[in-house]
Amino acid sequence: MTSALFDFTPLWPTGLPAPAARWTGLARYSFVGGNNDPDQVPLDGLIDAVNAVLRREGRTLATYGLASGPQGYHPLREFIATKLRRDAGINCIADDILMVSGSLQALDLVNQSLLARGDTVIVERDTYQGALTRLSRMGVNVTGIPLDDGGMRMDALAEALGDLKRCGIQPKYIYVIPTVQNPTGTIMSEARRAELLALSQEYSVPIVEDDCYADLIWEGARPPALHAMSRTGAVIHIGSFSKSIAPALRVGYIVAPWAVLSRMLALKTDAGSGALEQMVLAEYCPPHFTTHVPKLTRGLRAKLETLMDALDAQFGTAAEFSDPKGGIFLWVKLPDQVDTLKLCQAALAAGVSINPGPEWSTDKAHAGSRLRLCFASPSHEQIREGVAVLAEVCRKEFGVPARIANVERRAR
Amino acid sequence: MTSALFDFTPLWPTGLPAPAARWTGLARYSFVGGNNDPDQVPLDGLIDAVNAVLRREGRTLATYGLASGPQGYHPLREFIATKLRRDAGINCIADDILMVSGSLQALDLVNQSLLARGDTVIVERDTYQGALTRLSRMGVNVTGIPLDDGGMRMDALAEALGDLKRCGIQPKYIYVIPTVQNPTGTIMSEARRAELLALSQEYSVPIVEDDCYADLIWEGARPPALHAMSRTGAVIHIGSFSKSIAPALRVGYIVAPWAVLSRMLALKTDAGSGALEQMVLAEYCPPHFTTHVPKLTRGLRAKLETLMDALDAQFGTAAEFSDPKGGIFLWVKLPDQVDTLKLCQAALAAGVSINPGPEWSTDKAHAGSRLRLCFASPSHEQIREGVAVLAEVCRKEFGVPARIANVERRAR
Repeated sequence: MTSALFDFTPLWPTGLPAPAARWTGLARYSFVGGNNDPDQVPLDGLIDAVNAVLRREGRTLATYGLASGPQGYHPLREFIATKLRRDAGINCIADDILMVSGSLQALDLVNQSLLARGDTVIVERDTYQGALTRLSRMGVNVTGIPLDDGGMRMDALAEALGDLKRCGIQPKYIYVIPTVQNPTGTIMSEARRAELLALSQEYSVPIVEDDCYADLIWEGARPPALHAMSRTGAVIHIGSFSKSIAPALRVGYIVAPWAVLSRMLALKTDAGSGALEQMVLAEYCPPHFTTHVPKLTRGLRAKLETLMDALDAQFGTAAEFSDPKGGIFLWVKLPDQVDTLKLCQAALAAGVSINPGPEWSTDKAHAGSRLRLCFASPSHEQIREGVAVLAEVCRKEFGVPARIANVERRAR
Repeated sequence: MTSALFDFTPLWPTGLPAPAARWTGLARYSFVGGNNDPDQVPLDGLIDAVNAVLRREGRTLATYGLASGPQGYHPLREFIATKLRRDAGINCIADDILMVSGSLQALDLVNQSLLARGDTVIVERDTYQGALTRLSRMGVNVTGIPLDDGGMRMDALAEALGDLKRCGIQPKYIYVIPTVQNPTGTIMSEARRAELLALSQEYSVPIVEDDCYADLIWEGARPPALHAMSRTGAVIHIGSFSKSIAPALRVGYIVAPWAVLSRMLALKTDAGSGALEQMVLAEYCPPHFTTHVPKLTRGLRAKLETLMDALDAQFGTAAEFSDPKGGIFLWVKLPDQVDTLKLCQAALAAGVSINPGPEWSTDKAHAGSRLRLCFASPSHEQIREGVAVLAEVCRKEFGVPARIANVERRAR
């Protein structure tokens, strides 16, 4: 006997996102996603760490949260407190930190604890796609603030806050990536951070500081975190080990006042984030983090050079970009006639994946001919080959760049 | 200069759960939570596994999802497909499986993909607290179906489905724990499973089968899963490694038709579940799972014996319970005058944590003098001591059991 298949269609609630497509593998030349350099995973160190920590305290895996409680593995929170004090000037202790399953869960907890449908959030005009899609799905209005080479523009923020206030709208928070902005790669100066905090205080709008990429800067010390500079505790600080150690380890954290953390904890009903991953990081990081990261960033910088050289060689002046201050991505402007949403599809068919600008911006027109290229994961050779394929596709679809032989080289 | 602290209070949306309290550590005698026996964590095997898998393919940690795509680490999905075919009769392949961060994320994805505020879900009258709290927070109506020693009663289910239909209410799903029901510890027979599937089909209500505890049965083979018996694909099957290996590893899975999985994937925006934990399980389980689990269950059975003996010794006939068919918990009925919500508080002050019945039931009156005791985590000695303390607290608060010297021993 055969029966008709059960039809789930009548059960879907309104507003359910469209179904995902079957995964068909990574593109041959993949310039998307926060993936890192496989050769830079500190494998020997991680293996030593996992052996040591499991031998010593592996039996605690029998207990949810490793008997460290719902805020996460205590030794890792101790390391993060030390690291944030040293690198970001944040004066916090382990009890001020909530471990989460990657910074994406941090964003979810921020949104669930602060937002309702119809609320307004302020973001950088060009910003992290995952933040935008989350806000959009929640029915939250987004106000995008233009950026310059110092990050979010404070004149534009002041104007937007004033405009919203005149309309009787109280934004729920300002989402900002001050240190290696995603996708533009800028670092906000300490002076501008002070202006941002002053505006936050003036308008009583808290700040959500996404510091995911802050470990990956090419040179110099990073400025103090907004969280460190705030005198009022108005900053929720988010960090991650995805970019500094390995993205497949889903370990991020939130630093916030207890008034906020206690609300987030009530919403974090997942019985704790992955324990083994927290244990490995807690064991590996204290002795190795400060030597691993500079080595990692040197390698990333070298790949960025390869990417910028390849763009110069293949696109010439048709590809405009600023040299980012760190990170794993480059934000590229192509000529206005290029529609990067269309380019994305055509490139994918040719084996090259890119992030089209409109998915990373509140201003689809401004971002329509822009794209984000991630350079940490592909090899130097793949970067060169992938950019060549991308240029060929772009030329075929949009007539730019001109034939390779003719490209005008960009002065840098 | 000092500034007043930023006040987040005006920003909380309506319906936000109450803030969590500061964690104050595990109770000295902890009979709560799905924690397992620390001595039964297969530590040597897990250490060997993590070494092997990291040496072989640790560099894939640089890529989200380990280059296995968003459904999770492919070798682990292969193992689960093999295991489910062998143990549960489920005919599925790796592509039918979605790895999640523990079965709690599975419940969240089920709820997000199927439910809206005001919907109705059918559950067992006594059921998993985490399922009830999730439904309650979503503003979903819950219809509880009484249980007997064979699990959910089909006469009562038929009546409830009929009643709801007459009221024009189409329930979104039937949530059921057929194999080692939580908290009652029953196993639903194959015949009753067939009845359940017939009712599901008759009323076009899909089934969510939570099979978290199905590996932990004392004797005999488990019946085929509901998912295996369904001819129409109307069953969403949920499983976990929390009970069979270690709860702090946050690894669960969903088996469902692609029409459902594709909706859940669109909602699973966490960039993948923890990779290292999936890798370790995929490496450890294929050679060891079938020898580890019987050893684990023998140890759990011994602890259950200790718990039942301790209850007999301390409570006598005042504590009524059925010998569960497996699992890690015992559902206990105390005399009607005992309010287990109050008992829970008083016991906690004395160092004993228990799950009060009303938190595990849709019928607060029925469950008011019931409690759930988890026995996997405490040692035999802690079980004996903890039950003695609990009896003392209960006697002091409610006058039962009578003085220890006088308790009447229960015949079993």
